[in-house]
Amino acid sequence: MSVPVTLTTSPKQKPAADSLGFGKFFTDHMFVLDYSSAKGWHDGRIIPYEPISLDPASKVFHYGQAIFEGLKAYITVDGEALLFRPDRNFARLNHSAERLCIPAIDEQQALEALKQLVEVDRAWIPAEAGTSLYIRPFIIATEADLGVDESTEYKFIIIMSPSGSYYAEGINPVKIMVEKKYVRAVVGGTGEAKTSGNYASSLISSKEAHEQGYSQTLWLDGKENKYVEEVGSMNIFFKINGTVVTPELTGSILPGITRDSMIQVLKHKNIPIEERHIAIDEVIDAHTNGTLEEVFGTGTAAVISPVGRLLWEGEELVINNEEIGDVSQLLYDTLTGIQSGKINDDFNWTIRLT
Amino acid sequence: MSVPVTLTTSPKQKPAADSLGFGKFFTDHMFVLDYSSAKGWHDGRIIPYEPISLDPASKVFHYGQAIFEGLKAYITVDGEALLFRPDRNFARLNHSAERLCIPAIDEQQALEALKQLVEVDRAWIPAEAGTSLYIRPFIIATEADLGVDESTEYKFIIIMSPSGSYYAEGINPVKIMVEKKYVRAVVGGTGEAKTSGNYASSLISSKEAHEQGYSQTLWLDGKENKYVEEVGSMNIFFKINGTVVTPELTGSILPGITRDSMIQVLKHKNIPIEERHIAIDEVIDAHTNGTLEEVFGTGTAAVISPVGRLLWEGEELVINNEEIGDVSQLLYDTLTGIQSGKINDDFNWTIRLT
Ligand SMILES: Cc1ncc(COP(=O)(O)O)c(C=O)c1O
Ligand SMILES: Cc1ncc(COP(=O)(O)O)c(C=O)c1O
Repeated sequence: MSVPVTLTTSPKQKPAADSLGFGKFFTDHMFVLDYSSAKGWHDGRIIPYEPISLDPASKVFHYGQAIFEGLKAYITVDGEALLFRPDRNFARLNHSAERLCIPAIDEQQALEALKQLVEVDRAWIPAEAGTSLYIRPFIIATEADLGVDESTEYKFIIIMSPSGSYYAEGINPVKIMVEKKYVRAVVGGTGEAKTSGNYASSLISSKEAHEQGYSQTLWLDGKENKYVEEVGSMNIFFKINGTVVTPELTGSILPGITRDSMIQVLKHKNIPIEERHIAIDEVIDAHTNGTLEEVFGTGTAAVISPVGRLLWEGEELVINNEEIGDVSQLLYDTLTGIQSGKINDDFNWTIRLT
Repeated sequence: MSVPVTLTTSPKQKPAADSLGFGKFFTDHMFVLDYSSAKGWHDGRIIPYEPISLDPASKVFHYGQAIFEGLKAYITVDGEALLFRPDRNFARLNHSAERLCIPAIDEQQALEALKQLVEVDRAWIPAEAGTSLYIRPFIIATEADLGVDESTEYKFIIIMSPSGSYYAEGINPVKIMVEKKYVRAVVGGTGEAKTSGNYASSLISSKEAHEQGYSQTLWLDGKENKYVEEVGSMNIFFKINGTVVTPELTGSILPGITRDSMIQVLKHKNIPIEERHIAIDEVIDAHTNGTLEEVFGTGTAAVISPVGRLLWEGEELVINNEEIGDVSQLLYDTLTGIQSGKINDDFNWTIRLT
């Protein structure tokens, strides 16, 4: 089943690969699907990328009923277009929808629509090593009504943005600040949903991190301010004394799809991996006694970001001499290898567009 | 200093007073002010109420950088238009802005613009007892860019909605459910800011409360799930053994303007009032030993909502025989008296429009 397509009459000029950055340029088309309580989800269509017109009383502006996803399309070494685990993104979108009282979408239909959209804008997928087409599905509440309750109208939209390579000159370890004052999420809240408010809440911490020369924040749990949770837009892993550990999913952490992939790769390679509570003190102690071998973040944007420095209570921990560790490198090579079609997809994670 | 006004050429029909409800109808005009990092806040204008057109990559849709306020204009018994403590709303908007990394507005200019807007749409303020013009100032992030950082562009908008009486047939005590599973806010988060994500997060709890026949949720603190915080859109007060107590502002509670007004009235009337931690167990114990005399919520929408029933762990506490208590009535009469111009404004809270 395909959706109707209206092609643009004024295609945009495509930006040069080295000027892409992240999330700045958008392709020529977008997918839109409407919801009303009377009709359910309806009228799926691919149309030219264009502004949306909303009543100023639309609930998304006031009560933040908004969820999103982030995934990528890649051009493989043999010139095919490929999606990485897109089914997981639509499943997670529906999990977020449940928490935010947003009606579920049909995951299969969403995937079909996405494939069609990517084909329409296929020429927008950059092919240079490390580049990709970032895909942003999102749902917003559009009912014009100021009552604080769930909207009766929504829009599901997919936009796409060609993205540059995170690591133009090799993988650069990042500097991360452990956040003590602000809290991103707490059990019972919205931490495991990909909803706009979580990001709004985190901005002040990133801002303070940037001011101190750090690129992102490492969040601790909201109840005890003790256990490591995740980084701004990445899950976090530590290699301590030969074992890889990552915080277990307690309800306040986003269940990252890259995180899940990494865990599967580690298991497949027989590298010990544990999902469990990790107190920040355990990390500091491991550093002190020399067993903190690697720290890395995982996420769709950069796949892996080795952490070279970690700021905690005014002290900076230097990790693995600010170099990428063996396990980080192995995981990076495996995932990017699968995504670029260079190595065999034993996990059945990729969908090739025909 | 006044802002340019473009009057509508197609004024809407005004709804009948008994069909108003809350936040469903909007007046003929709105105020809009733009922000860019180059120009700061600029181009304030009053224009016909109309849809806003936004790029689908606008940050408000993805990262929830959105804050708002709620206040009211009233028609007094002698036919004048009056605003209640609007300066406090713009001050709170700026506090919310700080937490959400949104540039501060000029509070004085915002107040002047609001007054001008209310005068333009003065005929929209309903005059029937208990009705009012609900005013919704809000700020949204409009930059079209998917980077997770603060927007470089914003819109500050004021829309207005004629609202019906909450208590057409006298004050009806409400039924409130104490929430155990979900958490609204935690210290270090955004609880004391009026930002969209807090409301998105709360919807699922209200929904479950409604399904069980309760009108709103009473939130407990996010750290220990023990201390009473506030209700969905009201602060909460308890009268226990002659003393009125309300949760102190710990950082996770919205500092209600009605709450502040109530505290001032109570002090003025020499009724004992304490701002402090209140464990839910203390409330239950007070009910058991017969000292829980009144419970009421306070907020702009209803001024006071006496709580008649409170559900906690499957047990329903009936409070003050489901009648409004003496202190609740006194506070209600005082505040609505000041707002309607029936009693003298000793506190200097009202601004009359000329
Ligand atoms: C808060 C947060 N945590 C973790 C991740 C990593 O998730 P994924 O691997 O699915 O991209 C992201 C990025 O999407 C995120 O925003
Ligand atoms: C979460 C919350 N708490 C309390 C209040 C009461 O605040 P105010 O008295 O300023 O209306 C509101 C309503 O605005 C609210 O949304």
